[in-house]
Amino acid sequence: MSTGPIFDRVALIGFGLIGGSIARAARLQGLAGEIITTARSAKTRERVMELGIVDRVVETNVEAVQDADLVILCIPVGACGPVAAEITGHLKPGAIISDVGSVKASVVKDMAPHLPAGVHFVPAHPVAGTENSGPDSGFAELFINRWCILTPPEGTEAKATEKLRAFWTALGAKVEVMTPEHHDLVLAITSHLPHLIAYTIVGTADELAQVTSSEVIKFSAGGFRDFTRIAASDPTMWRDIFLANKDAVLEMLGTFNEDLSKLTRAIRRGDGEALLEHFTRTRAIRRGIVEIGQDSAAPDFGRPHQQLTKK
Amino acid sequence: MSTGPIFDRVALIGFGLIGGSIARAARLQGLAGEIITTARSAKTRERVMELGIVDRVVETNVEAVQDADLVILCIPVGACGPVAAEITGHLKPGAIISDVGSVKASVVKDMAPHLPAGVHFVPAHPVAGTENSGPDSGFAELFINRWCILTPPEGTEAKATEKLRAFWTALGAKVEVMTPEHHDLVLAITSHLPHLIAYTIVGTADELAQVTSSEVIKFSAGGFRDFTRIAASDPTMWRDIFLANKDAVLEMLGTFNEDLSKLTRAIRRGDGEALLEHFTRTRAIRRGIVEIGQDSAAPDFGRPHQQLTKK
Repeated sequence: MSTGPIFDRVALIGFGLIGGSIARAARLQGLAGEIITTARSAKTRERVMELGIVDRVVETNVEAVQDADLVILCIPVGACGPVAAEITGHLKPGAIISDVGSVKASVVKDMAPHLPAGVHFVPAHPVAGTENSGPDSGFAELFINRWCILTPPEGTEAKATEKLRAFWTALGAKVEVMTPEHHDLVLAITSHLPHLIAYTIVGTADELAQVTSSEVIKFSAGGFRDFTRIAASDPTMWRDIFLANKDAVLEMLGTFNEDLSKLTRAIRRGDGEALLEHFTRTRAIRRGIVEIGQDSAAPDFGRPHQQLTKK
Repeated sequence: MSTGPIFDRVALIGFGLIGGSIARAARLQGLAGEIITTARSAKTRERVMELGIVDRVVETNVEAVQDADLVILCIPVGACGPVAAEITGHLKPGAIISDVGSVKASVVKDMAPHLPAGVHFVPAHPVAGTENSGPDSGFAELFINRWCILTPPEGTEAKATEKLRAFWTALGAKVEVMTPEHHDLVLAITSHLPHLIAYTIVGTADELAQVTSSEVIKFSAGGFRDFTRIAASDPTMWRDIFLANKDAVLEMLGTFNEDLSKLTRAIRRGDGEALLEHFTRTRAIRRGIVEIGQDSAAPDFGRPHQQLTKK
């Protein structure tokens, strides 16, 4: 789709799963004249240099953003405010400043006050990920067929939003624009609450007296393992998400608890009809997700099976 | 591994995901001289005949078990008692009677009183599955590298248990023997509670006023979709499981609720340290599951990605 670089110089602050995947995909697609990156630890910077994916690895955020036309903060949401404060005096006039955080209202609140007039602030959230983190975890295909949500604050120039949309589209994503507040409600139910529940149940399993951890691990194919994947996500990132999107998460949690009480009561009372009715309804949502290509319908989630050969 | 049929005639009562997978794998491995099956609906029986996987499809359970050396009930656990009562007078002396139910104590309680002396009752639970059901959903590789738990009641002849172990091993499974009661506790945490939670959260998402169903479906890649798979499992089967394993499920649910309250309180109070500590601990369990081959460590769960080609 792209016919050349969309930005002359792209700066990535942070080179974890998302930063590393943006770099790989942008380079493969030729979307940036030059890609500069930095990372907080010397070890990560060294590893990024070895990987040879970006043009330059620098030591400081200030150095990284110098003359960049697009700056993307690929760091936990709690770090976005301080980094905005740090780079504010060094941004190129006309540059687009973005991020990849999973919460948007708090990022806007934390970053916007620091940003100078003359730069364009277009927060973004690519809804894609794996449970892996670190400089080696990224891959160019991560964003293909996934949504990227842009949440430009009121007053943002439409041209800047469109330019960032073109960039994400070229990375393979489908782009949607909404307000930061609505984003946070949507993600509270589609992502944050599922993660909280998964973290809880994996912790519960770990603490049981009657069943050993080794039994939990062995027999996890009965459903449990699907929870462990998301409960293995980056701890710092998720701590920040729950602190930053507290209100929406607590609201969804309230509804979830009411629904869980209803199902619990049905089990306690032996109300098979209520259970059957509920379980039948939830199948329809799954079908919707598979139909629009957001998951595989292959048996067992597309997990590979060994072959059983005739003996 | 097998060097010929383990049983002369195998009868499968029910031909859904599990029954159909047993038939396919047993035929591929040559584990049965003859495979007979039946299914409750005429439509399923017709489809099984078309598939041509078994030697004979019969109309009644009584006909199916005639002269069978191994009879496996591949039906929802709630139906096991009535079917045992139906077939009891027609079992071959010395036959092994088994099932594939996800709950074991209640199946033993429901079936054992009906079974005549001279047959061997060895309940089984293959811990494997997908969210699909019906005669077309099975596949021969379903049990490879998955555990199958045998729960022979006290007094069962060891020879019968070993013969069924050999059968499941030849289907590709790893076999473990435990009491029905311990099985039910282990599965309550590794399978039943995860399903209940998944059914709940998918229902919650479906009812929200602030976020539309179409938004939930679109942005499900953030974690939600992992829950929808197990919440799309067969409703009748799962109704029966929760009714049959009520006590163990309610016990695990109590512990889960306490843990969820703790995490909720940490979020409400902004206690980042408590969250980080919990999220770090849960990563270890995931590593254990991947290490012993019960899940894929491939990015994004092994879901296939399209290629991003250089433009």
